Amino acid sequence: MSLSGTYDDQNIFAKILRGEAPAITLFEDDIAIAFMDIFPQSPGHCLVLPREQARNLLDLSPPTAAAAIQRVQTLAKAVETALQPDGIVVTQFNGAPAGQTVFHIHFHIIPCWENVPRGRHGAGQADMGELKTQAEKIRSALA
Amino acid sequence: MSLSGTYDDQNIFAKILRGEAPAITLFEDDIAIAFMDIFPQSPGHCLVLPREQARNLLDLSPPTAAAAIQRVQTLAKAVETALQPDGIVVTQFNGAPAGQTVFHIHFHIIPCWENVPRGRHGAGQADMGELKTQAEKIRSALA
Repeated sequence: MSLSGTYDDQNIFAKILRGEAPAITLFEDDIAIAFMDIFPQSPGHCLVLPREQARNLLDLSPPTAAAAIQRVQTLAKAVETALQPDGIVVTQFNGAPAGQTVFHIHFHIIPCWENVPRGRHGAGQADMGELKTQAEKIRSALA
Repeated sequence: MSLSGTYDDQNIFAKILRGEAPAITLFEDDIAIAFMDIFPQSPGHCLVLPREQARNLLDLSPPTAAAAIQRVQTLAKAVETALQPDGIVVTQFNGAPAGQTVFHIHFHIIPCWENVPRGRHGAGQADMGELKTQAEKIRSALA
């Protein structure tokens, strides 16, 4: 079963949470951190990670899940203000067959525009300058 | 902008919430109702709807969002127990360009199996007998 398993604290998101790997951060607090996805499916694609060590939503404690979805709401609104998409997909993958590639629970926030197909996740690494520009706009909207 | 707009209480999910339209229900409480998606992307595809009148996650009150994601967790665990998928996608669409077709906030729970591609949403209506069999298994896991 791909859904169960032991949490591996060497995953890349665990390293970002510990400050051992870089990320273009949007906000952080005691519950969660949010940063840009460097393999974005669209401009502005970003992630909300609860700090709690959990592989997926089934493992996550309910209080953390509750706090995390509120941070997803806050960030989705900021993305809307900052980038003015026509729609936003919020998605969360549990297990490799569902599309999960990093086994620390995370929520995707993916802005969409009319008649612009979303890219495949992981198809290519983003231009870091573009990500930083998007991040500045989102941070301004959060402020 | 597709993300803003007035809540239309004649949408099909509002009718289900009022008991004016049928659904194969999995559970209901004061916060939310869950039922089978009749245009499933995979066997066991089901939905969690907060009762609050909101078009999407950006409109939903934070307390309801918190309570709703906990019900998504509960149902996802029951789907895992009942159907033993290899993965589960949790997703939530905001605005038509994001894939939203009914403008009452809802979360999709979509079980996945190794090497079985998920269908396109809305590609075809499910066999009602199969949905009822899946629902019985999920309800047993919830009990």
